[in-house]
Amino acid sequence: MAKDFPTREENYSQWYQDLVVKADLAENSDVKGCMVIKPYGYSIWEKMQAALDKMFKETGHQNAYFPLFIPKSFFSKEASHVDGFAKECAVVTHYRLKASPDGKGVIVDETAKLEEELIVRPTSETIIWNSYRNWIQSYRDLPILINQWANVVRWEMRTRLFLRTTEFLWQEGHTAHATKEEAIEEAERMLDVYTEFAQTFMALPVLRGTKTANERFAGALETYCIEALMQDGKALQAGTSHFLGQNFAKAFDVKYATKEGKQEFVWATSWGVSTRLMGALVMAHSDDDGLVLPPKLAPIQVVIVPIYKNVEQLNTVSETAIKIKKALEAKGISVKYDNRDTHKPGWKFAEYEFKGVPVRIAIGPRDIENQTVEVARRDTKEKAIYQITDIDLKILHLLDQIQDNIYKKAVDFQNANTFRADTYEEFQELIEKGGFVLAHWDGTSETELKIKEDTKATIRCIPLHNKLENGKCILTGKPSTQRVVFAKAY
Amino acid sequence: MAKDFPTREENYSQWYQDLVVKADLAENSDVKGCMVIKPYGYSIWEKMQAALDKMFKETGHQNAYFPLFIPKSFFSKEASHVDGFAKECAVVTHYRLKASPDGKGVIVDETAKLEEELIVRPTSETIIWNSYRNWIQSYRDLPILINQWANVVRWEMRTRLFLRTTEFLWQEGHTAHATKEEAIEEAERMLDVYTEFAQTFMALPVLRGTKTANERFAGALETYCIEALMQDGKALQAGTSHFLGQNFAKAFDVKYATKEGKQEFVWATSWGVSTRLMGALVMAHSDDDGLVLPPKLAPIQVVIVPIYKNVEQLNTVSETAIKIKKALEAKGISVKYDNRDTHKPGWKFAEYEFKGVPVRIAIGPRDIENQTVEVARRDTKEKAIYQITDIDLKILHLLDQIQDNIYKKAVDFQNANTFRADTYEEFQELIEKGGFVLAHWDGTSETELKIKEDTKATIRCIPLHNKLENGKCILTGKPSTQRVVFAKAY
Repeated sequence: MAKDFPTREENYSQWYQDLVVKADLAENSDVKGCMVIKPYGYSIWEKMQAALDKMFKETGHQNAYFPLFIPKSFFSKEASHVDGFAKECAVVTHYRLKASPDGKGVIVDETAKLEEELIVRPTSETIIWNSYRNWIQSYRDLPILINQWANVVRWEMRTRLFLRTTEFLWQEGHTAHATKEEAIEEAERMLDVYTEFAQTFMALPVLRGTKTANERFAGALETYCIEALMQDGKALQAGTSHFLGQNFAKAFDVKYATKEGKQEFVWATSWGVSTRLMGALVMAHSDDDGLVLPPKLAPIQVVIVPIYKNVEQLNTVSETAIKIKKALEAKGISVKYDNRDTHKPGWKFAEYEFKGVPVRIAIGPRDIENQTVEVARRDTKEKAIYQITDIDLKILHLLDQIQDNIYKKAVDFQNANTFRADTYEEFQELIEKGGFVLAHWDGTSETELKIKEDTKATIRCIPLHNKLENGKCILTGKPSTQRVVFAKAY
Repeated sequence: MAKDFPTREENYSQWYQDLVVKADLAENSDVKGCMVIKPYGYSIWEKMQAALDKMFKETGHQNAYFPLFIPKSFFSKEASHVDGFAKECAVVTHYRLKASPDGKGVIVDETAKLEEELIVRPTSETIIWNSYRNWIQSYRDLPILINQWANVVRWEMRTRLFLRTTEFLWQEGHTAHATKEEAIEEAERMLDVYTEFAQTFMALPVLRGTKTANERFAGALETYCIEALMQDGKALQAGTSHFLGQNFAKAFDVKYATKEGKQEFVWATSWGVSTRLMGALVMAHSDDDGLVLPPKLAPIQVVIVPIYKNVEQLNTVSETAIKIKKALEAKGISVKYDNRDTHKPGWKFAEYEFKGVPVRIAIGPRDIENQTVEVARRDTKEKAIYQITDIDLKILHLLDQIQDNIYKKAVDFQNANTFRADTYEEFQELIEKGGFVLAHWDGTSETELKIKEDTKATIRCIPLHNKLENGKCILTGKPSTQRVVFAKAY
C-alpha cells in the first residue's frame, strides 16, 4: 500500500499530501478548505495537547473557554487587528432556515437576520479582552494567565492539509499583566515552552527570534516565533508568542488600580500553536516509505507481530507476545499486538512502517526456542535480535535512542542547510537551493519586500540574542549590525 | 461574599444563576446566548472530559475531528433531521469584511457571498455520514467507533448558563455498524457509560429509559436517555444515546458489502453529553452556602489554611502544612495550601466553602504542639480533630466517604420525590409539587401533548426493563401496560 505515491525527490508537495491521506492522518472534507482529522492523526494531536497542556499548567496557566462568535463591532476596535483579519472572516448573518417554497430542501429565513453580524473567531483577543474589562479592577486581579483550546476559522483561498486550512484547531493563551516587563517576560517564557516542546517531543530543532514589523501579528508590538526547516528546504513557522503592549487594553478600556491607587492600562500577551504542527511533524521526519514518528508522540510506540504457520504455533507465540506486551505496558509504553489472521506478516510490516510505528517486534517459533525476538526500528530500518530477558528496559532505552536519533538527524539537516550570504547574487543562489540563509539587512520594510518580490524569501526571524557584527545589507549595501534569517516559507 | 444571593427556597432559579456566576464557574458574554466558561468552571469540565474520555476509549472508541461547518444541502438530506434543527441554525453567508465607506469600522463585503450557505454545526450526523460514505466499503471496515469533542451552536431564544446556551461544548459519538442488533447494543452500551459516569463521578442518580416519539432526537428510531432530578423537583435530561437505524446511511448512501457480497445500508448510533452536565452538577448538590462538589470532580479536593498570629507561627505551621500537602499529593489528591496574608482565615473558610472544596484542613500553633489538625467537610459541615499520623490515608478515606454521602443524599432525595399517580387529579397535584411522577399513559402523542398543555409536564422516559402492570391512562382511561415517568423539566 505504501508505494503508490511519489518520493520526496520526485514531488515533495504531492509526497506530503499523499502521505497525510494514506497514513490516515487527515483528509479534505466536502466543506471547502476544512479538513477531517482522522483517528490516527487525532491521536497524535491528543499527545501534543497533553504535553503542551501540562507545560502550560506547570507555568501557572489555567484553561477557560470563550465564545466562538465575535460581534463585528469588537473587531473594529483595534485598528491593525481588523486590518489583519477582516479579509478572511466567516460571517454569520442569519439564525434560521426554513423550508424552500419549491419543496426542495431549505433556504435562509430572511426574517431571521441578525442586527449585528457575528464573526467566527479567527483568534480571540477581542472577545477575551472585552471580558477581561469586567475581571480586572486592581493590581490584585493580575496577572491573569489563561489558555483556551479551540477551533478557529480563517478563510483561506489556497489550503493544504494541516499547514493551512480554513478551520483549524489550536490553543491560544491570553494573559494580562500589571507591567510591561512582566508581559514581555511572559511572552518570552511561552516561546521557551514552545521551543522545549518542539525539541523534546517533536524532535524538531527550531530557530528562535522576533518577527520584522511586516510579519508581526496584527495588533502586536513584538512577535516572537520559532521557525523550523522542512526537508524541502522551506521554513515553517511552528509557534508564535506576542507582546501586545497596551493595544487591546486601550481598545477595550481595560484599566487597573495600582497599589498607589492610580489607573493604568493593562499589558497583554497572546501565544498559540495549532494543528499546523502536525504538518511540521510529518514534513520534518518522514521518508519515502511513510511516516517517521518520534516515540514521544507516536500513538503506538511498539507493535508486536506474530510469525506462525498454524494455530498451535500462534498460541505458543501469543503467550510470549502477551507477556512482553504487558511488561512493556507496565513501563508506560503503548503497545499493539497485531494477531489478525487476515493479513500476512509482510503486509503488517509494511503497514506499520508506513504508519511510523517506532519499534516493531517480530516473534516466531524459533524465537520462542531461543528466548529471543527480532526488533526493527523505523528510523534507521535496522534490525537486531534481542534476548527476551529485561526486554522492557531494553525497549524503553531503544525508544529514547530513537527519539534522540530523530532529533539529531533533524539538527544535522538544519545545520547542513543553514548558509551565510554576503552578496545578493550569492543570496539568490542559496535561496533558490533552499534552507536558512543568514544575511545582512538594512532594517527597512522596503528592502524586505523587494527581496521577497525577487526571490519569494521572507525574513523568518531576527534571532534572539543575535551575535552583533558589522556588515552591509545584501540588497542596498547600507550598514547593518546583525544577520537575519531568510528562507522561503510555508 | 457568599451570602448576597437568595436561598434555594426564596428563588431557586436566581440562586442557581448567582451561584454559577459568583463561584466563578461561568458568566454570560456580550454575544447573545453565549457563555464564557471561567477557569474554575472549566477545570470541573476538564475532569468530566477526562473521566468520560477514558470510558469511551475503554469501550473501543477513538477521537477524531470533523468540520465546524455543514453545507446547507447536507442538512436537507434527512427529512426529520432538518425539521428538528432548521429553526435554530447559525448561518454563514459571507467570507470577508471590508472597511466601511463612512470610515467607521467594517461592513460585510457583499462581493464575498458564498454560493452555498454554511451552517454552524448543531450536531454532526450529516457531515460525518457524508465522510463515512468514503470510509466504508465492506463489512471489514465496520464497526467505526468514533467520538468527537467539539463546540456546537443551536440558536436558542431563552438561554441559561450551562443549561441552555447558544454555543455549548459537548462530545458526540458517531458509530457505524453492520447489523441492527450491534447498533442497538452500542446505543445501550453508551447509555450504560453515561449512567456509570453520572453515578460514580457526578454522584448523581439517574433514571434510564427511552423517549417517546415526541421527544426523540430528530432522525432517530429510538432515543435512550438518563434523567436526573434537581432540588427544585424538576427533571434534567443529562445524556442521550440514539439508535439511528439506517436513516443517515440512506440519506448519504452509505452501503457496505456483506461477507456474502451483498450491498446493505449501514446501521448507526450517535450519543452525547454536554456542558449542561455542569448545570446538573450544581443544581443537584449545592446548597445555600455555595457549591457542593463531589470529590471526584472537584478541581481542589483539599484546601489547607494556616492559622497564625505572626511570621514565626506561620513558618512553623507552614512546615507541617507543606509536609501534609506533599503526603496527600503523593496519594493523588489535589491540594491547595492557601498561605496568602491578604486574607483572614475566616474569609478563606467562607471562600472555599462557597467554592465547594470538599475538605478543609486548618492548622494552628496549638495543632502543631498536639500533632493534630482540624478537618472540616463541605457536605455535612462537620468538623473533627485528626491526629496527623497517617493523615494521607485518613483524608483519602474521607474523600470516598464524602463522595458516597453526596450520592446517597441525592438518591434519598430522588426516592422521596418519586411518586405514583393513579388519577389525573392526583397527577396534577403531584406534578405541581415537583418530582418524578409514575403514571399510566395510553401511548399516544395526543395524550402526551394534552397533558403537557395542562400541566407543563412531559414524559421524561419509558423506563428500561420496566415492570409491566395493567392500568388505565390517567387522562383518557384507555388501557395501559406500564407506568411512564412524568416531570416538569429543564
